[in-house]
Amino acid sequence: MSLSKNEIKLVKSLQIKKYRDLNRLFVIEGEKLVKELLLHTHFKVDGIFYTKEFTTPLPKHIHTFEISPAELERISGLTTPNKVLAVVKYPKETPIDFAEDNLILLLDTINDPGNLGTIIRTADWFGVRQIIGSNLTVDLFNPKVIQASMGAVYRVNFYRTDLHLAIEKLKENNFDILGATLGGTSLYQTNFQKKTALVMGSESHGISPELIRKLSKEVMIPQVGETESLNVAMATGILLSHYRRGLV
Amino acid sequence: MSLSKNEIKLVKSLQIKKYRDLNRLFVIEGEKLVKELLLHTHFKVDGIFYTKEFTTPLPKHIHTFEISPAELERISGLTTPNKVLAVVKYPKETPIDFAEDNLILLLDTINDPGNLGTIIRTADWFGVRQIIGSNLTVDLFNPKVIQASMGAVYRVNFYRTDLHLAIEKLKENNFDILGATLGGTSLYQTNFQKKTALVMGSESHGISPELIRKLSKEVMIPQVGETESLNVAMATGILLSHYRRGLV
Repeated sequence: MSLSKNEIKLVKSLQIKKYRDLNRLFVIEGEKLVKELLLHTHFKVDGIFYTKEFTTPLPKHIHTFEISPAELERISGLTTPNKVLAVVKYPKETPIDFAEDNLILLLDTINDPGNLGTIIRTADWFGVRQIIGSNLTVDLFNPKVIQASMGAVYRVNFYRTDLHLAIEKLKENNFDILGATLGGTSLYQTNFQKKTALVMGSESHGISPELIRKLSKEVMIPQVGETESLNVAMATGILLSHYRRGLV
Repeated sequence: MSLSKNEIKLVKSLQIKKYRDLNRLFVIEGEKLVKELLLHTHFKVDGIFYTKEFTTPLPKHIHTFEISPAELERISGLTTPNKVLAVVKYPKETPIDFAEDNLILLLDTINDPGNLGTIIRTADWFGVRQIIGSNLTVDLFNPKVIQASMGAVYRVNFYRTDLHLAIEKLKENNFDILGATLGGTSLYQTNFQKKTALVMGSESHGISPELIRKLSKEVMIPQVGETESLNVAMATGILLSHYRRGLV
């Protein structure tokens, strides 16, 4: 069986946010991610397009299509397509659980999908279970976010909302609101409380001035050399590791 | 004046290591990096190709060519060329200074140019001045390394050699040889001495078994969540931040 023009068109269109939102569908690619998707998640799969080489048993209740490597190449968004592409339904949004006794990450507009994916991956490593993204943060279902997260999108709850409202709720729930800024107290002198909300700003502008006013504390990673800035995903990982160390 | 076919061919060929080595030339692109190259480095520039929009004054002793944006596009390796491209001579190698009282980073084969560039950028942030790369580590002059380093290649000395020999020399000079492994002592329980050599392994295989035997200590970043691994550049940045914290 070969793919129809319409099927090819639909799958390819999911590279673009407008069509993802329209169809409430997104794409997950590659052997490792799709295997994990099928075995360990509650994400609802709409269809699987796979080549002969993909040997993971496929569930019966899902539409599956064996296709040729050339066809996979036509529908794939990867430079090097890898055996399988899944079309997945938007999951239902889970609201933030403000009762939890752990760090919650707030992203004040991350623009680069690779950065967002890496942040989610790294947050998951350090046991962060909830991330709140500003309304302007890049789309979670952008294929580059999914790829860079290395499967962490399956485990970390990403919730998109207005950060001003989120911070009010966090304060009501006794979270310490910490923000990474260039003028903050040294990270090495910072004591973290368990219920910490950590705000990271955008790649080029940092945290917006109106949000900075709402922070309980500003923290910075001391610079020794001359490099102007750290990548935001890198800064997030460093801050999370010191939070963890503080709790040990 | 318009570019000759041969000039276009030469500049484009520098995207490939073989031709860089043959000509002992590499490419640095974009307004910010080239400005810094001209103003703050001792790198010897072979030629500058710039469009009208590039307004930094150009030194007289360098070959400079004003070209059209269309021509820049033809010679550029970037998806979005940015005003200027410099062809630069390979700098003279500076041997490692084993006398210094600071962390030296050892890379046991980093394959991804983006990772190497980010490692150099982050190392520079934390004041690391010397990096020793294994012979198989990706080429420093790969354009993606240069771009991702955000100018840190101008400041950090990257020296390529056999890591076994380097570790012997480091031991003779009283360096503590620390390696990041998955079975090491928790980073949070690790005390760093000032003269530390930190070994980071490759993206897929970690540190090679023969090198692990030569470490004085193994260290790991404790995992809390389920993500299988941290990106190697991320892990490097996290380790460097805790080294710095330990010295404060």
